[in-house]
Amino acid sequence: MTSSTAGAERTIMDHLLDRLSALGVQHVFGVPGDYNLAVLDRVVAHPDITWVGTSGELGAAYAADAYGRTKGFGALLTTFGVGELSAINGVAGAYAEHVPLLHIAIGPTRETEQAGSPVHHTMLDGDFDRFARAHRQVVCADAVLSPDNAVTEIDRVLIACLRESRPGYLRVPRDTALAPVPPHGPLVVPDPRQGDAFQVQAFRAAARARLAAADSVAVLADFLVDRFRARDELAGLLRASSFPHAVLASGKTVVDESSATFLGLYAGASSRASVRAVIDGADLLIRAGVRLTDLTTGKFTHGFDPAEGIDLGPTTVTVDGRAFPDVPLAVALTVLTELAGELIGEGPAAQPPTTGHERRSEPAWGKRPIGRTAATAVARARACCRGVSPMVRPLTQRYLWQAVAAAVRPGDTVVSDDGTALFGIVDHPFPRDARFIGQPIWASIGFGLPALLGAELGGPSRRGILLVGDGAAQLTVQELGTIGRHGLKPIIILVDNSGYTIERTTHGRRAVYNDISDWRWGRVPTALGARNPLVLGARTPWALDRALSRAVAATDRLVLIQAYTGKDDVPPMLKRLAANRPDRARWVP
Amino acid sequence: MTSSTAGAERTIMDHLLDRLSALGVQHVFGVPGDYNLAVLDRVVAHPDITWVGTSGELGAAYAADAYGRTKGFGALLTTFGVGELSAINGVAGAYAEHVPLLHIAIGPTRETEQAGSPVHHTMLDGDFDRFARAHRQVVCADAVLSPDNAVTEIDRVLIACLRESRPGYLRVPRDTALAPVPPHGPLVVPDPRQGDAFQVQAFRAAARARLAAADSVAVLADFLVDRFRARDELAGLLRASSFPHAVLASGKTVVDESSATFLGLYAGASSRASVRAVIDGADLLIRAGVRLTDLTTGKFTHGFDPAEGIDLGPTTVTVDGRAFPDVPLAVALTVLTELAGELIGEGPAAQPPTTGHERRSEPAWGKRPIGRTAATAVARARACCRGVSPMVRPLTQRYLWQAVAAAVRPGDTVVSDDGTALFGIVDHPFPRDARFIGQPIWASIGFGLPALLGAELGGPSRRGILLVGDGAAQLTVQELGTIGRHGLKPIIILVDNSGYTIERTTHGRRAVYNDISDWRWGRVPTALGARNPLVLGARTPWALDRALSRAVAATDRLVLIQAYTGKDDVPPMLKRLAANRPDRARWVP
Repeated sequence: MTSSTAGAERTIMDHLLDRLSALGVQHVFGVPGDYNLAVLDRVVAHPDITWVGTSGELGAAYAADAYGRTKGFGALLTTFGVGELSAINGVAGAYAEHVPLLHIAIGPTRETEQAGSPVHHTMLDGDFDRFARAHRQVVCADAVLSPDNAVTEIDRVLIACLRESRPGYLRVPRDTALAPVPPHGPLVVPDPRQGDAFQVQAFRAAARARLAAADSVAVLADFLVDRFRARDELAGLLRASSFPHAVLASGKTVVDESSATFLGLYAGASSRASVRAVIDGADLLIRAGVRLTDLTTGKFTHGFDPAEGIDLGPTTVTVDGRAFPDVPLAVALTVLTELAGELIGEGPAAQPPTTGHERRSEPAWGKRPIGRTAATAVARARACCRGVSPMVRPLTQRYLWQAVAAAVRPGDTVVSDDGTALFGIVDHPFPRDARFIGQPIWASIGFGLPALLGAELGGPSRRGILLVGDGAAQLTVQELGTIGRHGLKPIIILVDNSGYTIERTTHGRRAVYNDISDWRWGRVPTALGARNPLVLGARTPWALDRALSRAVAATDRLVLIQAYTGKDDVPPMLKRLAANRPDRARWVP
Repeated sequence: MTSSTAGAERTIMDHLLDRLSALGVQHVFGVPGDYNLAVLDRVVAHPDITWVGTSGELGAAYAADAYGRTKGFGALLTTFGVGELSAINGVAGAYAEHVPLLHIAIGPTRETEQAGSPVHHTMLDGDFDRFARAHRQVVCADAVLSPDNAVTEIDRVLIACLRESRPGYLRVPRDTALAPVPPHGPLVVPDPRQGDAFQVQAFRAAARARLAAADSVAVLADFLVDRFRARDELAGLLRASSFPHAVLASGKTVVDESSATFLGLYAGASSRASVRAVIDGADLLIRAGVRLTDLTTGKFTHGFDPAEGIDLGPTTVTVDGRAFPDVPLAVALTVLTELAGELIGEGPAAQPPTTGHERRSEPAWGKRPIGRTAATAVARARACCRGVSPMVRPLTQRYLWQAVAAAVRPGDTVVSDDGTALFGIVDHPFPRDARFIGQPIWASIGFGLPALLGAELGGPSRRGILLVGDGAAQLTVQELGTIGRHGLKPIIILVDNSGYTIERTTHGRRAVYNDISDWRWGRVPTALGARNPLVLGARTPWALDRALSRAVAATDRLVLIQAYTGKDDVPPMLKRLAANRPDRARWVP
């Protein structure tokens, strides 16, 4: 039993922190307020948890999200009303992108509430449940704690967060938080790999038949593999089968992108042709943890039929539309790995797509070496924008992201805010064990800086690299101060192009609403308290290469690279996306 | 008929903007997003409305709130999901503090919605109404517009906002916003002064009897007088009667604070003794637009019984607990003004409280001159912390707010964020026609900087003075860039004391959670793009006086005064507040 108040009576807050600690949480993000101060004493006193005060609650939520992506669970603590509502967009993002975290909002005492007292941070109408109701729209489970229900409700909400890989919300009157915790047992987390044996067997039979008959097999992987903790199982399948595979932008780095069988990014009609040919042309497409969304499928221009193939959801698998419920993603991947081994016999292999649809009793793909298509795609994904005159030509987004990707080292965490940065970087494969954090589904600009904070604290052995546009950086710039305060040493690559260029490409190329306040970004880190930052500017490819080299070497300093690009310049991927006509008919799975 | 698209077909958005324009709105605040870009073209094209892009949506909401306080109505426009949720705390503050504004959230097309398409900024589940449901907790009226209902729903929501003086919310699919507007008539705003004649007469009789019998009368005024547009009527009553009067912190500058009969701030047991004696001791206390809240009543330590006296609510008056519904505040004030004239006969007068409770047929207070109590209170409120050695002693909050108040000129708008600044400044009367904007009920730190933006754009003839703590300023610092971008020239007085000192006085005097990132505030304005700012530091009373003189003279520059005070130093008002024990029994009206 862990206890933060050895000798003294343990409180419900101590217990909640123990629970979070058991889930891997070592940092709780948030902002103080008079309702939560005494409760923060419990956080500060906890032996295994560190309080990370952010400069705003939205930043706390984004940081907790990235922390959750890094450590498996995140947590933020805010004050009633004003604090919790400022955080709600970040919590909603965790819901949309399936990140497990807990939002703890500390409110007035039960006495105050029962009296309906018109206290500050309320609407003066005695309704203390408004903000919980607002949160109910964006979390998978929520509760108002009392001394009587705290032990059961805390576990119910935490387990829901784990099971759904989504945020939960607890409203806690401060006297409840500080009340003695009733007796309780350990947290019993249901085994996420516990499926229905009958369904698993039925799936195995269906998948075996499908695999055996397939002329060509490819794998499309996405973020739910990460969120439902099936990375290892996916890696096992890809290793055993050598199936050519691609990722959606939302699933970047869910596989080892340095693998020879990794094709690159799949984004429907916005994909590179070589990637698209393999994925859309596969006789059998295995989709692992995939959600098809507008921005990740090139506006629903994916060339496969979502009703066909093998689709591995968090808990339900479908084979050509036939559903097998209660077959967890990790279990399904293990089954497929076993089948691949059986069917291939001696070893892994894969092959390019064929146009025919002949079905055979033994897998055609099992006999062939990896096709040229995949290898070409990898090579092509790595070759980009050579032949520029780097000292004189202005820096382009095409060059920028290729160079940034080349500067990523194994083990780095690359965080990208939404905008040109995200669509620029996802086009380039990363080295082994580098991790990517982006938010292409919720797509809330401002995510980046606080997410960098959360990712660095959650994974201190990995160097953080943030890619962020100047417009996005303005939304949460205060957390650059928090990054500085904690002595973190990330590399921040700021696209300095005077506005929301991703919006400019959509509409209003010269509209005033796509311009932003003109900041002197080079002065911002010092102004916000970063000590001895290294600030570098890059207006040419040559200057960028130099800046990146210095940044990678300067592991003991916070580095800001101002990368100046044209107001209308966007990465190739975004051009391809903008050229697509949305295909709304295609999205239905 | 106003039209922003003469010749072209007018859209629903054009119509909505016309409606807002008719309510006095000349600026719409917000942040672009891909769902709202084409709609922003309509905003930019409108002849009477200017788009004010902020660096974040929370700032837009706060700015719209302060704009609404200044101009009578505010508006913000955000994008679906990510944008609107980032603004919700600011919208909630407008609800708590009764500010009329409209939040317009532009979403995906109806086609996208009807298809349940898993597009970005959604939860991918086809539920497009989540964020409207979240907003429903913090607005007085909301609607999802369609071409069929737009004309009626826009007016319904706007009229509710006006009637309740609270925010409304419209979710508008972007194709609906750009659809042709159906035929429609002018906006018919119900006359807020239209009461029930019978109830008004009944109130008049009850009030006459109560006034005639009263030995002493005092008036306590609060923010609802401003929000329900009864300033002039209150001024009329105070002029006609010479009743001694005070304001709650939430009602600061709702009366002319330079008047001889103005007592000062009333805050229950935290009031100056002279103010408390008159208000709590009055035989008849007239409360005009008062809401009793914890932080404005010294934690419910008001000495009067809310069930007694004359209480003027927005639409209901009570006399010793007897309710007269449908008597609007302005009407009730006019009735009282007439009664005061009748009962006094020759002219205005007032008197100090008596201890006796004799009732007479003619008003005892009508015969006496203004008592010494009120005059003493005014004098005492103006005399403060004399006799310091200003060149050597460190600056104190006691000195700071007295000096700041003395620097306020007629016509200025003083905006205060929550924290020591608010509790410091409310203790000091302002000159005639100076306006105060604070948020003591919702009390969301970070309100200040964006509120300054909104107040300056809403009242460009008034110089803005912002009072803000360093902790609060961090939350929304990006809007300092927006203030600079618009060439505004406010005076910003930043309390530089390394943290949340108001929280330190509450709990955790040396706790790490009350410390903040250590910023170099003097460098912040230039870093965020302010041109030629005047940055001044003040560590002593002498330096502060000099800085204030320079600031007042520098009308062509944005001025930042860093006022350095001790980590534990708080204004006297806050010491008095902290010393109070909450009296929960007292709040019930």
